[in-house]
Amino acid sequence: MTEAERERAYRVDQVLPALAKQAIEADLSGEFPLEHVRTISEAGLLGLTVPTAYGGLGGGLRDLSAATYAMATACPSTSLAYFFQCSGSSRGLLPLAAIEAGLFADDEVPVVRSFGEKVLRRMGEEGRWVANFASESVRSKDAAVTIATEASRTDGGWLLNGVKSFGCATGVADDYLVTAKLDTGDTAEHLAVFLIPRDTPGVSERAKWDAIGMRATATHGIVLENAFVPDENALTVPATFVKMTQVSRGSFVGNQVALSSVYIGAAQAVYDFALHFLTTTTYHGTDEPIGGSDLHRQLIGKMRAHLDTAYLWARRQILLETADPEVIPKDDVVANWRVAKGEIADNCFQVAVQALKACGTGNTGMAGAISRGLRDLSMGLVQGFPAERGRLEAASYLVFGKEGDQFGTVGGAR
Amino acid sequence: MTEAERERAYRVDQVLPALAKQAIEADLSGEFPLEHVRTISEAGLLGLTVPTAYGGLGGGLRDLSAATYAMATACPSTSLAYFFQCSGSSRGLLPLAAIEAGLFADDEVPVVRSFGEKVLRRMGEEGRWVANFASESVRSKDAAVTIATEASRTDGGWLLNGVKSFGCATGVADDYLVTAKLDTGDTAEHLAVFLIPRDTPGVSERAKWDAIGMRATATHGIVLENAFVPDENALTVPATFVKMTQVSRGSFVGNQVALSSVYIGAAQAVYDFALHFLTTTTYHGTDEPIGGSDLHRQLIGKMRAHLDTAYLWARRQILLETADPEVIPKDDVVANWRVAKGEIADNCFQVAVQALKACGTGNTGMAGAISRGLRDLSMGLVQGFPAERGRLEAASYLVFGKEGDQFGTVGGAR
Amino acid sequence: MTEAERERAYRVDQVLPALAKQAIEADLSGEFPLEHVRTISEAGLLGLTVPTAYGGLGGGLRDLSAATYAMATACPSTSLAYFFQCSGSSRGLLPLAAIEAGLFADDEVPVVRSFGEKVLRRMGEEGRWVANFASESVRSKDAAVTIATEASRTDGGWLLNGVKSFGCATGVADDYLVTAKLDTGDTAEHLAVFLIPRDTPGVSERAKWDAIGMRATATHGIVLENAFVPDENALTVPATFVKMTQVSRGSFVGNQVALSSVYIGAAQAVYDFALHFLTTTTYHGTDEPIGGSDLHRQLIGKMRAHLDTAYLWARRQILLETADPEVIPKDDVVANWRVAKGEIADNCFQVAVQALKACGTGNTGMAGAISRGLRDLSMGLVQGFPAERGRLEAASYLVFGKEGDQFGTVGGAR
Amino acid sequence: MTEAERERAYRVDQVLPALAKQAIEADLSGEFPLEHVRTISEAGLLGLTVPTAYGGLGGGLRDLSAATYAMATACPSTSLAYFFQCSGSSRGLLPLAAIEAGLFADDEVPVVRSFGEKVLRRMGEEGRWVANFASESVRSKDAAVTIATEASRTDGGWLLNGVKSFGCATGVADDYLVTAKLDTGDTAEHLAVFLIPRDTPGVSERAKWDAIGMRATATHGIVLENAFVPDENALTVPATFVKMTQVSRGSFVGNQVALSSVYIGAAQAVYDFALHFLTTTTYHGTDEPIGGSDLHRQLIGKMRAHLDTAYLWARRQILLETADPEVIPKDDVVANWRVAKGEIADNCFQVAVQALKACGTGNTGMAGAISRGLRDLSMGLVQGFPAERGRLEAASYLVFGKEGDQFGTVGGAR
Repeated sequence: MTEAERERAYRVDQVLPALAKQAIEADLSGEFPLEHVRTISEAGLLGLTVPTAYGGLGGGLRDLSAATYAMATACPSTSLAYFFQCSGSSRGLLPLAAIEAGLFADDEVPVVRSFGEKVLRRMGEEGRWVANFASESVRSKDAAVTIATEASRTDGGWLLNGVKSFGCATGVADDYLVTAKLDTGDTAEHLAVFLIPRDTPGVSERAKWDAIGMRATATHGIVLENAFVPDENALTVPATFVKMTQVSRGSFVGNQVALSSVYIGAAQAVYDFALHFLTTTTYHGTDEPIGGSDLHRQLIGKMRAHLDTAYLWARRQILLETADPEVIPKDDVVANWRVAKGEIADNCFQVAVQALKACGTGNTGMAGAISRGLRDLSMGLVQGFPAERGRLEAASYLVFGKEGDQFGTVGGAR
Repeated sequence: MTEAERERAYRVDQVLPALAKQAIEADLSGEFPLEHVRTISEAGLLGLTVPTAYGGLGGGLRDLSAATYAMATACPSTSLAYFFQCSGSSRGLLPLAAIEAGLFADDEVPVVRSFGEKVLRRMGEEGRWVANFASESVRSKDAAVTIATEASRTDGGWLLNGVKSFGCATGVADDYLVTAKLDTGDTAEHLAVFLIPRDTPGVSERAKWDAIGMRATATHGIVLENAFVPDENALTVPATFVKMTQVSRGSFVGNQVALSSVYIGAAQAVYDFALHFLTTTTYHGTDEPIGGSDLHRQLIGKMRAHLDTAYLWARRQILLETADPEVIPKDDVVANWRVAKGEIADNCFQVAVQALKACGTGNTGMAGAISRGLRDLSMGLVQGFPAERGRLEAASYLVFGKEGDQFGTVGGAR
Repeated sequence: MTEAERERAYRVDQVLPALAKQAIEADLSGEFPLEHVRTISEAGLLGLTVPTAYGGLGGGLRDLSAATYAMATACPSTSLAYFFQCSGSSRGLLPLAAIEAGLFADDEVPVVRSFGEKVLRRMGEEGRWVANFASESVRSKDAAVTIATEASRTDGGWLLNGVKSFGCATGVADDYLVTAKLDTGDTAEHLAVFLIPRDTPGVSERAKWDAIGMRATATHGIVLENAFVPDENALTVPATFVKMTQVSRGSFVGNQVALSSVYIGAAQAVYDFALHFLTTTTYHGTDEPIGGSDLHRQLIGKMRAHLDTAYLWARRQILLETADPEVIPKDDVVANWRVAKGEIADNCFQVAVQALKACGTGNTGMAGAISRGLRDLSMGLVQGFPAERGRLEAASYLVFGKEGDQFGTVGGAR
Repeated sequence: MTEAERERAYRVDQVLPALAKQAIEADLSGEFPLEHVRTISEAGLLGLTVPTAYGGLGGGLRDLSAATYAMATACPSTSLAYFFQCSGSSRGLLPLAAIEAGLFADDEVPVVRSFGEKVLRRMGEEGRWVANFASESVRSKDAAVTIATEASRTDGGWLLNGVKSFGCATGVADDYLVTAKLDTGDTAEHLAVFLIPRDTPGVSERAKWDAIGMRATATHGIVLENAFVPDENALTVPATFVKMTQVSRGSFVGNQVALSSVYIGAAQAVYDFALHFLTTTTYHGTDEPIGGSDLHRQLIGKMRAHLDTAYLWARRQILLETADPEVIPKDDVVANWRVAKGEIADNCFQVAVQALKACGTGNTGMAGAISRGLRDLSMGLVQGFPAERGRLEAASYLVFGKEGDQFGTVGGAR
């Protein structure tokens, strides 16, 4: 860790007690604790991955992964929402990186730069929570993510219509970053990004989502009905999205491993609880910990192996996306990510399953550490894609040299 | 199926709609739906395994397993509580069987017979819900189940003191069947059984238990403080408990596989939901079911293999415990059960995990079929003992010709 | 078991010592022990599944599975070859059954009946080893098994050309039963069956196959170069093959579960060896068996669970294919088989893996029971199809109501 | 990699073709290819981990792991034997390190130093193959490795008696390094090390060992019958062995991860073969690789995940044992190794299992890459200890703060 990384990690440590304090209640109620917005903003952490030039802390993927991991040991839901906030910085950083890489024409540069810097300043200087809304619930056969939300040209800006089904911090964030396609075409070239303040007319919340785990993330998403976005808040330069993915170090916009780190943090918390329980609970009338039995050691050994395997995959992916010079080509980094994501999710979930088995019926309380862990970690099995899909994608790359498409569009929402 | 079995199964089918109607709300509130007591009692099912001579339906393990399985497809919690009600009939049947086997002295026979018949009539003729309270939460190194609840002699009966931590239908059942040890000694020989009406002075409920799954079983258990039980409701003939286990066909009092059938019913419900979802949900703009993809077929195949494996183990165990003449010696039947219990629980849980992966984020709602299934089935992993313990026990039997002790006692509760 | 089944099982038991005696040497040399042909023929077992009317023993699938299982505990290779011999009876039984079912036109009946009866008499009355050569090594995308061997019309019979890659008892059997397609078309309708004595001109053996396991099966296959088959030894009535599969109870020609029973027998032998070793080997200076350690009990428990799971799947499949009246529709029986085959193979292989781990380095000798078991059982993972393929096929059936094609043809061998 | 590491890796690369050339024949015959001794000695690699001051190459654990990995892609057996040769350097390095650490009394230092330097010069300057014989086949309940070989004082030296059951390069190495206990006591304090030229009177080879895999390692071991070892070749200073383990960075003498790297190299070779086969074999009449099917991609994805998981564990362990300053305390490093060893072995074996399934019956030839891989990698499951034991040991450490004993002794061989 560099000195700067240590300083940023210190800021994260400072907010953990406040996060932990609300974790059980947040899970119970399924409500994002609003005070966390202020807590995290005041610690400067909304700009963790924003360059210092824009008022951020200048952190990178290592910082972000460490932060989401640490926060998840206190409150996985908040950590997940925070990850998606930070991932919004990619909508500022990648356009700027694409300019650096010479991917934009001279006349496109100013408008791209202006949008990118605005996003970064919003998160850095202004300390606003900018929630990133990319995914939708439409399923298409040929792409992993399909965008049906559509933007139509109007006077001085754009009118947006559609439904963004998933997106943390719905109704909580100050601004939404919305990916939509222009109504001028149906390919990834026509994808655009819009920055939309929460209280914009025509923007409403979908019904709250009462999920099995990660319950306090406010992931219910928004409905856009003729929501007007002025030109200065729209990045509609053709092929911007494609260019952004070209300059990313990992899959799509990169950094996804920091999301997986949320699950590792949650798994670590379950492991810590279980090990403490098993080493401090003794057999009736003895001081022998129950954890020493052949049964419990078998389960503890598995827990440990699963937890460590998750760490190993995450560390490797972080290294691959941050190493300079790069260790392996980007396509291989992406293939590694496809497998890594699933291995991390499956192994973390297994930590909770073994902990449940080891700690027994007495620890199955809904609000207990193991139940919360099992439920939160079950979300990791499906969030993004399950392990089985990742392995199939990686295999496609290994056999054919390429994956299936990740992003597609379908006929508009109107 | 015999004609009589078919008739009994028909009675079960009749109550399923009423059970299903309350299932989601029961899970949400964590309350046992009181009207189910009447529904099941009026259908005559509280005496399902009680001989017709005592007003029951005369069913056996095959009936009970079919009933708990079917009820669990509608409401796993109710099915679990119902199982423990029916398992109470063992406190009537096994003493009578032990008399038949000549295990009791002549002067013991009348009192044993009287108690046994009373239990059976309570469930059969009187249609009362008799909840069975055996387990406690004390852990001892040398036995799987440890009893600390203690009965002391008093005028005309016994005073009971202790805590029965687990026991379905707490506060719901009409009567409790309580296993306790006499204060005259500390071995399994001193275990006794007491029949205690719910509103007996000195009997109170423990705090409600807000579990991750099987939430509407009212399993919180009771506290006994100088609860008086008259002699006619006590079975304290020495070694009765040991003699009961001798005449059982399976582990302990046998019939445990009907409990495992609860989890198979729950898994079947998850499977049915998932398969329906995957075959009726189509890719955007096509009529191709998403279930046909390489990813989904992989997961469906696993679901099916896990579900069928669970069925196979249950069917086998039922056969082993009901075959006449017996197929293998009782000790082998018990060893088979040790493994079977875990295989059923693990495979059923895996059905839910694969279903979750296959059906995706949109099906992670707390009240949805997959979340409820995953949570209910997670209880199966720890209820009784985890798969790993069962395999260790079976291995002990294979190597040493005997298992560790299943029942033990510890110094009394006072 | 019926009395007749018991009598047939007794015949099988009589040959086991002779089989066992050669098993190690057969594995070492990779040669099918020729004397086994006489041993098995003289016991009347070549006609095990041939009706008594044709000189056979009149056994069914239950007999065949019991026989292959028992033989495999002595010598898996011989058992596998024996299975394929017996499966040849399907080429006699299924045509006769299709006649019964009215699937053939009146003028087709005599020729179909004549061929069917000839095959059965060859195995029954004449006690000849008739090896069944169906599979080939060509891979096609749309079918599980693809036939390229081709028969062309010539004076008084047919000329066959092609390569049958897999087929036990090559160079050992008295006759080969060869599936080929007529050169008049390329669909399953054009498949035909030919009965070819081993020493027919134009029939030669392929190079011997030095496999990792099941080494003494003589599975190297034959090359047919203008091999002449007279009309009386050819079953070329159009669509005969399709009609045969229609009257089978299981997948394709049914009975495949008796092949899986070979692997269960091999796994049982490994389990028996391991349990004997672990219960009779003691720690230095004690009489405590090493099998009692926490490590070994863990592995023994897994061994047992895997072995029993394999049994359960096999028993179920046998029941489904023999129950009268049928329990579930044929298509479901086939889907069950798709999963069952893989579960049996994977679980049996796991028995060997756990046994290897439990019995340690000292039991890794090439000729030892565990090494032979591991190697023989590894063949089960690929023989026919791996578990993963079976589950995908079953899922296709569950989603679409049908599987992919099992049999296809490709352009002829010339 | 440093420049020096690169140079040492280059030397390893130079010997690979020679190793690969003999690999199939070596597996077939089960004979260690004698010419490999010269090949490796002439490349200077016998002193890979010997300091340059003693004529070695000055490499460390990173070099050794890279070397065993690379050699194993060519010939796993030779790589395994080479590992045990190099691990002999610990008998030189650790005594010297213990001197540095001040663990020896002043009067002990010269004799310890003399022995240590002699071992190192033998491997470095003299380029002799020094085989390390530690393990024996006695099983004791309380220790992982038990030594029964005994040394008795005689004029000018020691007489050794016993059987060293496992030890690569038996009859091939120039010298044997033998661990034995002095007949003066029975604790680890009394363990000593002896350097014994191969042709010493009283030293004979045990019967050759015809193992399922790693067949060409000449691991059959030696019998010592009154073998005389002069004082200058004996390290009998009390507690030397214990002091050696104190200064090691990992388990026992450390460096064991370089042994696990052998299996990773073997797994990589299987993976490479399988992926080449699956991407170059096409469906009949098309140019579509069979590897692109849903079945094959499923298996390829698993192969890749298993292979990469093995790498991750190995890389981590190497880092933990070589990091300066240390990352975690030594006891945690050892606990990590307990889990790592099993994860590597199990995952590598799984690569072969998936490869077998994916590549099908046509690739089951005994001498083929997959069969050799499966057999070689099966040895990894038992070599040292199985994964299940490692996890139990790690759990003991996590619960109790310490493992069971690794080294013990039993009553002498006489």
